[in-house]
Amino acid sequence: MSMLKEMAERARRASRALALADEQTKNRALLQMAEALEKEQDAILAENEKDMEAGTGLTQALRDRLRLTPQRISGMAEGLRQVAALPDPVGATLSETVRPNGLRIVKKRVPIGVIAVIYEARPNVTADSAALCVKSGNAVILRGGKEAIRSNLAVGGVLRRALARSGLPEDCVQVVPDTSRETAQELMRLRGGVDVLIPRGGAGLIRSVVENAQVPVIETGAGTCHTYVDKAADLDMAVKILVNAKVSRPSVCNACECALVHRDVAEAFLPRAAAAMPQVEIRGDERVCAILPSAVPAAEDDWGKEYNDYILAAKVVDSLEEAIEHIQRYGTGHSECIVTADEAAAREFMDRIDAAAVYHNASTRFTDGGEFGLGAEIGISTQKLHARGPLGLEELTSMKYIVYGDGQVRG
Amino acid sequence: MSMLKEMAERARRASRALALADEQTKNRALLQMAEALEKEQDAILAENEKDMEAGTGLTQALRDRLRLTPQRISGMAEGLRQVAALPDPVGATLSETVRPNGLRIVKKRVPIGVIAVIYEARPNVTADSAALCVKSGNAVILRGGKEAIRSNLAVGGVLRRALARSGLPEDCVQVVPDTSRETAQELMRLRGGVDVLIPRGGAGLIRSVVENAQVPVIETGAGTCHTYVDKAADLDMAVKILVNAKVSRPSVCNACECALVHRDVAEAFLPRAAAAMPQVEIRGDERVCAILPSAVPAAEDDWGKEYNDYILAAKVVDSLEEAIEHIQRYGTGHSECIVTADEAAAREFMDRIDAAAVYHNASTRFTDGGEFGLGAEIGISTQKLHARGPLGLEELTSMKYIVYGDGQVRG
Repeated sequence: MSMLKEMAERARRASRALALADEQTKNRALLQMAEALEKEQDAILAENEKDMEAGTGLTQALRDRLRLTPQRISGMAEGLRQVAALPDPVGATLSETVRPNGLRIVKKRVPIGVIAVIYEARPNVTADSAALCVKSGNAVILRGGKEAIRSNLAVGGVLRRALARSGLPEDCVQVVPDTSRETAQELMRLRGGVDVLIPRGGAGLIRSVVENAQVPVIETGAGTCHTYVDKAADLDMAVKILVNAKVSRPSVCNACECALVHRDVAEAFLPRAAAAMPQVEIRGDERVCAILPSAVPAAEDDWGKEYNDYILAAKVVDSLEEAIEHIQRYGTGHSECIVTADEAAAREFMDRIDAAAVYHNASTRFTDGGEFGLGAEIGISTQKLHARGPLGLEELTSMKYIVYGDGQVRG
Repeated sequence: MSMLKEMAERARRASRALALADEQTKNRALLQMAEALEKEQDAILAENEKDMEAGTGLTQALRDRLRLTPQRISGMAEGLRQVAALPDPVGATLSETVRPNGLRIVKKRVPIGVIAVIYEARPNVTADSAALCVKSGNAVILRGGKEAIRSNLAVGGVLRRALARSGLPEDCVQVVPDTSRETAQELMRLRGGVDVLIPRGGAGLIRSVVENAQVPVIETGAGTCHTYVDKAADLDMAVKILVNAKVSRPSVCNACECALVHRDVAEAFLPRAAAAMPQVEIRGDERVCAILPSAVPAAEDDWGKEYNDYILAAKVVDSLEEAIEHIQRYGTGHSECIVTADEAAAREFMDRIDAAAVYHNASTRFTDGGEFGLGAEIGISTQKLHARGPLGLEELTSMKYIVYGDGQVRG
């Protein structure tokens, strides 16, 4: 049997015990995991240092994401404590009916079972994902990138020992030690072993998972978000919202990548917006470039592009209709915003745009588990199946019909 | 552009209009579709006759499934009328919160968008699937088998003309005219074009979809269901339940494939059960064969097998624990039953068995959209993502966060 199949069998056994654990037991485990991370931080930092030494060829940005510090480890512990404080989603009754034949049918929330996460360089994802999976009653198989493997194994080891001390199976959390491409591919095809696979990372990772996976997948993270400044927009508000959506954190999926501006307000709006974010390169259509001398002409492939950078595509549109059509064509269904004082225009935009989140007069940057009140998230789903938008604890559960009879048979 | 890509684009445009249609408009369309099927039944029957002539090489069972009659067409029309009478799932508010920063976040139920269905010989699936998709606001691309292609195109044509007369886009329902394997494969990979793919058919079809699909899939239909007769079972009830689960319709996924019988009641139960279903071949383990001279010895691959036939695997177990472990190992997570008068044993079984439906003292044959009160179903999901068990109208929807602000930006 392959290493991964053995890991999946251990995860399955662990998931069965974890599914029956009560809330207090899971919370106690999470608090012990948090404490252990802080207590054993020296060992984790030493392994992280080896990753840093092995990763001298990485870009500065990647090295920044890879590096752990006492503060970052405390942040991971704090994340575990926050998840412990969230309500347990498992066991809730979703519906209950008594059928005419007397059958009582109760639909209950249950854990999914075994969740696999494939992710890239940040070692904190190891602790975050473990916390959310344990609280929602799921065993997790964590397959991080090779850059962070020593850090991930160190964090995973600490979490596993804390789980065992708290009386839960250590195999609720497993870190895959082998970071080869083949192992990732095998994980994607582990039917029966993995109930759901969640990729967390860039577009390349998501694409590879979608193309190769044979287990159910929740796609996350790709976002080309638009901000439409309507002719009835309060322009002060529009500048504030667009600038926040673009520059507060350009590397994330809920950042704005394209501004659509109604022609009636383009001359008033564009120069003010550009002045408010001088660090941003604006790639405009002809009309934008005519208004903004600093803009560079957009190419066809600028529409729909996820820059994750200080770059903004911009286009002047003749109507709300044109804005909607542009977003229908180029949006990725993540987060889309209209800035307007016209309620009817807002309603039409929000009804017709098909995205995880549609905004009226607020920054797309709010699409986030914490900001939405879910407490924490394991990613942001951009598919329409199972869950859309931030994936919190409830989104890590499934359900089960429990049917009580007294001898009923079907006629 | 390929034919399928063009169909998917037309479906997308149609889905946008359909998503905004109100309940009355959709119901009017469904009633017109029903009426048109009955009015134009001669044309449908003529095309079905051509399929029957082309299918002389098919088995009798397949020919039976393929054949349409005036009665069966009325049955399809009745199905459309029943779906029209069900509540519209679209637009329901799932949650509403106001965040400390004043953002109002409303989570609403919305259609999924474009659904593709790949199915086998029965032409009634064309009308059933169209009805459920239209009512839930989704455009549907129907790819049936080559045996039924003329019937499917005839039914689809009638439904499309009725849609157009009712003011909805005819492209809400499209039947793929090309039944080649290549077209099915292309449909499975139509990312961006198809939001969800639902295979309806045998294990081979499901496997092919799971292995090849790059679009999100809801797996349906595979079921190896068990009935466990506990030592505390009322044996009269147990005989009635097991016989119903096995013989009332052996070809369906909620039929029982394996009986597990506690050793304390095996000698009393097995002969009675066997006598009550003489048409069933029992494949037993050693202890079953020792009690039942008519049983044939089971091979290792009888455990977990979906016979869809008058065959039942049977095993004597020493304990509830052994029954649970057998089901955990061999079950497919569809429907599992315990017959017992012992409430604690029932609770343990139902808590620990991870399946779409778990039954206490009732036949597994009840796992069905109609029997569960969902009104109708497009299949029975055996995966844990999105939906589990019968897929009714609600299961054909997604959701969307609608966020109302007054200028909020993220700090």
